Amino acid sequence: MTLDHGDPGDAPSIPPPTAPLANPARPSAAEEARTVAAATNTATLASLSADGTPWASLVTYGLLDGQPVLCVSRLAEHGRNLAADPRASVAIVAPDPPADPLAGTRITLAGVMERPDGDEADAARAVHLAAVPAAAYYIDYSDFTVWVLRVHRIRWVGGYGRMDSATAEQYAAAAPDPIVPGAARAITHLNDDHADALLAMAQALGGYPDATTATCERADRYGLDLRVTTPRGVARTRVGYATPLDSPDQLRAATVALTRRAREG
Amino acid sequence: MTLDHGDPGDAPSIPPPTAPLANPARPSAAEEARTVAAATNTATLASLSADGTPWASLVTYGLLDGQPVLCVSRLAEHGRNLAADPRASVAIVAPDPPADPLAGTRITLAGVMERPDGDEADAARAVHLAAVPAAAYYIDYSDFTVWVLRVHRIRWVGGYGRMDSATAEQYAAAAPDPIVPGAARAITHLNDDHADALLAMAQALGGYPDATTATCERADRYGLDLRVTTPRGVARTRVGYATPLDSPDQLRAATVALTRRAREG
Repeated sequence: MTLDHGDPGDAPSIPPPTAPLANPARPSAAEEARTVAAATNTATLASLSADGTPWASLVTYGLLDGQPVLCVSRLAEHGRNLAADPRASVAIVAPDPPADPLAGTRITLAGVMERPDGDEADAARAVHLAAVPAAAYYIDYSDFTVWVLRVHRIRWVGGYGRMDSATAEQYAAAAPDPIVPGAARAITHLNDDHADALLAMAQALGGYPDATTATCERADRYGLDLRVTTPRGVARTRVGYATPLDSPDQLRAATVALTRRAREG
Repeated sequence: MTLDHGDPGDAPSIPPPTAPLANPARPSAAEEARTVAAATNTATLASLSADGTPWASLVTYGLLDGQPVLCVSRLAEHGRNLAADPRASVAIVAPDPPADPLAGTRITLAGVMERPDGDEADAARAVHLAAVPAAAYYIDYSDFTVWVLRVHRIRWVGGYGRMDSATAEQYAAAAPDPIVPGAARAITHLNDDHADALLAMAQALGGYPDATTATCERADRYGLDLRVTTPRGVARTRVGYATPLDSPDQLRAATVALTRRAREG
């Protein structure tokens, strides 16, 4: 993980763990990026205007193996731009951003737009229509073009001080997280009814034996993000499952196993 | 108003008005753009990477006379980009977008980023901090730079078939709408309790004497957007007040006056 700059302002007050983390496994930048891309159907496109200046505009998209599929009119500025110069990027912001927008998760996917051919054209049309039902009203108009962004460069930012890049190969090989999109209810249940279990995890597995409270901020296929309070201040840590999960119905057993392991110490 | 392309799909079924609109006054594209810019603190920046490709990234902003004021790190890609080439644009999406994102309102402001000097630097810093409280934690770090986008070109899209451009002079001279941001409750009240008044407006002032129902979709300083049902189909029309409003507390009297005028008509 690359830190672009220090965690602003409150960085010096974050207490470090005082014991090794049992399993700090977490998604790669490529996996995080695939998860964000799969979470919505709206992005902002950066394209090049005729004079070479960058043009930002709202677009909708579907995904073909992680590649954004756009449907834009040649009569609109961004459509003219892509027709003249296919170099482009899209920024995608994860849904339900926090009150501080820069604490939230977002990605940039950069590359070159191509008009798909043959079977890929059919597949691209289908994924766009599945993600953007309203496109049925205009996708067949003659001025609309379906574009696939060949993703060459990936940047993921998970909030302050959490960011990394991924290669095209890493991005293509990664999959969206199967747990993140539907985990909200399970996280609420953990925090409301199993605060003692989360605290035990933070103390025994998360590197904070002096933790006094712990709340779960995210669950993904590799583990839980915990926010821990200690006499030394507030920190965030990680408790990974024994093995990665493949479907949401495995989350309950995985957290029960983490709890048992924490209490058996 | 320029139509970039026809209203997709259902365009042929929109019934035209059968009488003149009494007052179709509505905000200019410049006013619409100022209203969108003032409605949030989050945008997507398009900047130019070192190789000339366009880079889309999330940013926060405040406004100085309508000009977006950004605060970005030189250690981040978009910060490096602006330092090397100040040509940029920002896309801003109006809050609470509809289920079909392309039916919603968004703008692009394009121009050149400048580092403000002297009094303007103080003012830029202040408006950024007012709009983005979390910036207090990093705005004074040495790697962060405050930029003001000198807006040269403005594109407003109000949904399908509603779009126009504005010049820098028009944008600078326009003001955000004083009614739009707080009108939701009044619109709900009109639709819930005064459907008969809205119908009278649509029939007598909105050009649809054959309207059978009318609902208010928006209130701004110049008038109301009405959605009307007729035996010929569904349409949208406009009823303007006698004079533009300057503050939200004038909205009630203006709609009462429209109702009276419609019924006396």
